[in-house]
Amino acid sequence: MQSQLNVSQKLIKSHLLTGNMIPGEEIGLKIDQALMQDATGTLVQLELEAMGLKQAKTEIAVQYVDHNLLQTDFKNADDHMFLKSAAEKFGLWFSRPGNGVSHPVHMERFGKPGKTMVGSDSHTCAAGSMGMLAMGTGGIDVAMVIAGEPYYVKMPKIFGIHLKNKLPDWTSAKDVILEMLRRYDVKGGRGYILEYFGEGLDSLTAMDRHVIANMGAELGATSTVFPSDQQTLKFLEQQGRAEDWQELVADPECDYDKYDEIDLSKLEPLIACPSSPGKVVTVKEVAGKPVYQCVIGSSANPGYRDFWVASKILKGKMTHPSVSLDINPTSRQILENLTTDGHLSDLVHSGARIHQSGCMGCIGMGQAPATGKISLRTMPRNFPGRSGTENDQVYLCSPETAAASALTGVITDPRDLNKLYGLKYPKYSSSQNTEINMEMLIAPDSAKSENDLEKGPNIKAIPITSPLENSISAPVLLKMDDNISTDEILKAGANVLPFRSNIPEISKWTYYIIDPDFYERAMENKEKNSSFIVIAGENYAQGSSREHAALAPKFLGQSCVIAKSYARIGWQNLINFGIVPLEFVNPTDYDLIENGDKLTLNNLPELIKSRKPIEVIIGNKKQTILAKHTLSDRQIEVLLAGGQINYFRQKQS
Amino acid sequence: MQSQLNVSQKLIKSHLLTGNMIPGEEIGLKIDQALMQDATGTLVQLELEAMGLKQAKTEIAVQYVDHNLLQTDFKNADDHMFLKSAAEKFGLWFSRPGNGVSHPVHMERFGKPGKTMVGSDSHTCAAGSMGMLAMGTGGIDVAMVIAGEPYYVKMPKIFGIHLKNKLPDWTSAKDVILEMLRRYDVKGGRGYILEYFGEGLDSLTAMDRHVIANMGAELGATSTVFPSDQQTLKFLEQQGRAEDWQELVADPECDYDKYDEIDLSKLEPLIACPSSPGKVVTVKEVAGKPVYQCVIGSSANPGYRDFWVASKILKGKMTHPSVSLDINPTSRQILENLTTDGHLSDLVHSGARIHQSGCMGCIGMGQAPATGKISLRTMPRNFPGRSGTENDQVYLCSPETAAASALTGVITDPRDLNKLYGLKYPKYSSSQNTEINMEMLIAPDSAKSENDLEKGPNIKAIPITSPLENSISAPVLLKMDDNISTDEILKAGANVLPFRSNIPEISKWTYYIIDPDFYERAMENKEKNSSFIVIAGENYAQGSSREHAALAPKFLGQSCVIAKSYARIGWQNLINFGIVPLEFVNPTDYDLIENGDKLTLNNLPELIKSRKPIEVIIGNKKQTILAKHTLSDRQIEVLLAGGQINYFRQKQS
Repeated sequence: MQSQLNVSQKLIKSHLLTGNMIPGEEIGLKIDQALMQDATGTLVQLELEAMGLKQAKTEIAVQYVDHNLLQTDFKNADDHMFLKSAAEKFGLWFSRPGNGVSHPVHMERFGKPGKTMVGSDSHTCAAGSMGMLAMGTGGIDVAMVIAGEPYYVKMPKIFGIHLKNKLPDWTSAKDVILEMLRRYDVKGGRGYILEYFGEGLDSLTAMDRHVIANMGAELGATSTVFPSDQQTLKFLEQQGRAEDWQELVADPECDYDKYDEIDLSKLEPLIACPSSPGKVVTVKEVAGKPVYQCVIGSSANPGYRDFWVASKILKGKMTHPSVSLDINPTSRQILENLTTDGHLSDLVHSGARIHQSGCMGCIGMGQAPATGKISLRTMPRNFPGRSGTENDQVYLCSPETAAASALTGVITDPRDLNKLYGLKYPKYSSSQNTEINMEMLIAPDSAKSENDLEKGPNIKAIPITSPLENSISAPVLLKMDDNISTDEILKAGANVLPFRSNIPEISKWTYYIIDPDFYERAMENKEKNSSFIVIAGENYAQGSSREHAALAPKFLGQSCVIAKSYARIGWQNLINFGIVPLEFVNPTDYDLIENGDKLTLNNLPELIKSRKPIEVIIGNKKQTILAKHTLSDRQIEVLLAGGQINYFRQKQS
Repeated sequence: MQSQLNVSQKLIKSHLLTGNMIPGEEIGLKIDQALMQDATGTLVQLELEAMGLKQAKTEIAVQYVDHNLLQTDFKNADDHMFLKSAAEKFGLWFSRPGNGVSHPVHMERFGKPGKTMVGSDSHTCAAGSMGMLAMGTGGIDVAMVIAGEPYYVKMPKIFGIHLKNKLPDWTSAKDVILEMLRRYDVKGGRGYILEYFGEGLDSLTAMDRHVIANMGAELGATSTVFPSDQQTLKFLEQQGRAEDWQELVADPECDYDKYDEIDLSKLEPLIACPSSPGKVVTVKEVAGKPVYQCVIGSSANPGYRDFWVASKILKGKMTHPSVSLDINPTSRQILENLTTDGHLSDLVHSGARIHQSGCMGCIGMGQAPATGKISLRTMPRNFPGRSGTENDQVYLCSPETAAASALTGVITDPRDLNKLYGLKYPKYSSSQNTEINMEMLIAPDSAKSENDLEKGPNIKAIPITSPLENSISAPVLLKMDDNISTDEILKAGANVLPFRSNIPEISKWTYYIIDPDFYERAMENKEKNSSFIVIAGENYAQGSSREHAALAPKFLGQSCVIAKSYARIGWQNLINFGIVPLEFVNPTDYDLIENGDKLTLNNLPELIKSRKPIEVIIGNKKQTILAKHTLSDRQIEVLLAGGQINYFRQKQS
């Protein structure tokens, strides 16, 4: 360990409880803060209840309600009341429904340089924008942290990205992270913390950095870290929390495990094409395609500036008659400031539809595009079908590009606005008077710790799992390609999300996008008292942090995955719920296994503990291949116990 | 016919094409304007297509998009594009999705004293607030009107309501219409136009009158009419349309068929209890019950003032931690003015959730309350389950009562705000500078009349019906009570509305609220090549104008209804789609028929034409009862042809 540390290493070192800071080794970290959103939080609360927690042991833990806001029937509203009762019981802050997206609200009200955080949402890393180490993870990991346990993660490598110069007009922070995705695609950040540094930072506000940190998740990174500097102080001052600032910068001679640089002045407007955040091209390359919808907002472009710049572009002009311009205010505080400053009026007058503060269509909760039509969104993800429309055509871009295209009705490079409308680039200098809105945040109150949890009829207990059996002999029910996302494993969208607290019901949507008949096939298999195995390529279970992508397959009988490689959070969730995550020793063996093959794996607990290669017998082909795992000793214990809840119970007894 | 006429009679006389102005006789009226909303409009457009319409023949016809805005998948968005293409093809105005609720937007931009209008929405009568004769009706009637045909309706009686004095503090227009509902319940207006007059009008603005006119639908009235006076002029001036004003007042010696008076100064805050708009009590009587949600907005309280008064009550205070305050801005113009004037900021700061402009939870499209919890809404209807939550507890009240209860967390008489918060009643004097917003209204363009209709995969042709058979011999599949609403006949709500342009799919929700197994029973019956009959009490098919409440039962095989009486629009829709709407000659015969009884009706066409009593043989009881109908000659022809589309085709050929 060098004496000269980068910001990430400083954050880790100051919170290290177990393990060594050697990349790939498991470390245990002290965690200061935790956040949950509603779509994953109902499970966290049920887990805390099962664990018998009295009061949260983190400095700050916040239950947000931002995903399931449509309330098309009783289920969302019942979940909200359940979460409120749980926040009261366990001593958590409660951000009331419609108060805004967890990430920007947390940054505005609770984020603190130098602190660590975990959150049951994959974009938790957005808090890295203010010098925190913040990681998205499965709900059970968050529950453990709230109960005072360390957070375990493989020590990541640190990837230093040197930002040089300044962004040219008509580009903004979104184009920086799209450039990273263009260079490294959706797996390029795996095993790394992305740490930005250099003089290019001076012109990026804390909220600009949030844009970049947020979508670090799309690169598969463990987290993203920015230093805490004068821009961070300025942000905290605007939030009335200057006292929460501390400087946190890299030592001058520090090292990085990997290095790259971006000359900001060379960037041009970029856009991610359907249906992966990694399919990045210049806007110019796809300009002219007709657009049905432009959406501005979400945790990937949540700042006041992002709406401000759209309002400046649109002011006094009218959106194209064929375009639905949907404004998704990310926090009620930002909505209030936009309203007070007159920018909301300008947006409304230009034809915008204003929606309640929350995640909205980013997670398929409303404003789905029409069949086959293009939707331009400032959101972080465009996985297939995530918008709520099958075969959707979702592009990801900056607010500048979205606003320009809303005017013209076709995908438009915002630099053309000068030519088309004589418009100069509206230069933002941060708003001086930020109105603070704490009105929908309810502070913990220990007097309420004896309250009962309020459970509506859709809130069901978590299914109990069994310890790992000695051998698995089961059919392959699904063979998948590379980069299978959690959306494909367990569908997002308005008809699915309301069942996030009801595993038996939500499991009907397991692997639905890949095979709509999967649930029926799995149930037929289950009736034979058999488990099943799935085969995957690289980067299995990328995307969101939802535990349901492990819990629901587990409920249907999934005992094992054999993949070429895993996304970090998805892999951890498999272990946490007792599904064996194996990797091919020889990746080309992937080609030997077909749908329907029966696989047999003997002496599993022993082989897993001893880390010996595991023989996989392909029954009907009389062939044998080898599989391995990369679990830590602690994870092995968890897996053998049948998952984290069983393991925690064993430890307590 | 007297020479001294009331306003309603003047409107009818100036538009009379066929028939005599004798109450109960069918008259044919020239119609100047038409409106459609999206949930009913997709059918209207399909009907216009089937009729081969070239260009709309009304002065103004507007296709609004206000119901299906959640867009949880492709269906809503596809419908929007279909409606836009149809508006272009047929020469209609198009109000873009999210521009606002049809009724207030129409009043702001198109309403004209002295004109007639029909609309495929039961609250079309709201336009009566400005001296129009406006009637809600089934979509096919609107289609016929757009094609230049007269609108046929039974000449209503005129019910004059004399308003005296002024409303006391803390009461508003909503309390006036709730008082009417308290006195006359949900059937009390049937067969009448409610015409308000008297010095009490002087203090009611055009938008206040809209509140009262809108909910005339809840009394079952044919329409509601207000004079066009100085308040009407003031409103049109604010809308930049003073030139559209003309005075229209009753002759001094005119008569009314029925008369009542309301001393406004004696009113106190009123509230309609679950689950009927007619269950009205004073707020005092139910004060103190805990509230989960307060919703302000909808076509029943759409005006700037209604939000203004809520913002004044809430300003600087915080909504109760247990209450979700949902603001449902009814038009983008009102939203823009609230924003510019600072009232939206105040609402947001107090904890409000701001939703897009549209009908929202009024039709069960979002913001459904939690299980068993109370929702206070300024909306017009609280039929069972309409909010989207089964066994819901929805109360209807004024914005004053809703805002007061949002503060306290319990149902609160707003007069108590003085005692509780030292608050004086905020007196409204209408805003001087109304910002006009036309940005999302697209004018007709005859150059587009050759455009193709844009039909997504969920847009299906209307099922074809057959001429009436000589005899019906069919089982009673359902026996119902009084006041069965269109919601109970065909469910509203987020999971049903997206299928409004797909009859085979939506028919699965027929009578779902009364009997969740109805669809399966009907399909079993259909497999036997049998039709079915339903039995109902008084006021069958009250509520909305949706044709689906006739089309979907027809699709499943409903050939006949025998009821004690019908709601006007529902009755007309039955005829329009070839379902025989009979009435008991002796209402107590209702008790003789049971679910499952087989009924036989012979020589139907002949008996219907001759208006002779129709024998209904109760097969398994060897009993016979008598039924009758009240159809006009024209309606008899329509019914015998198997409905309006067949009839129109016959006439054309």
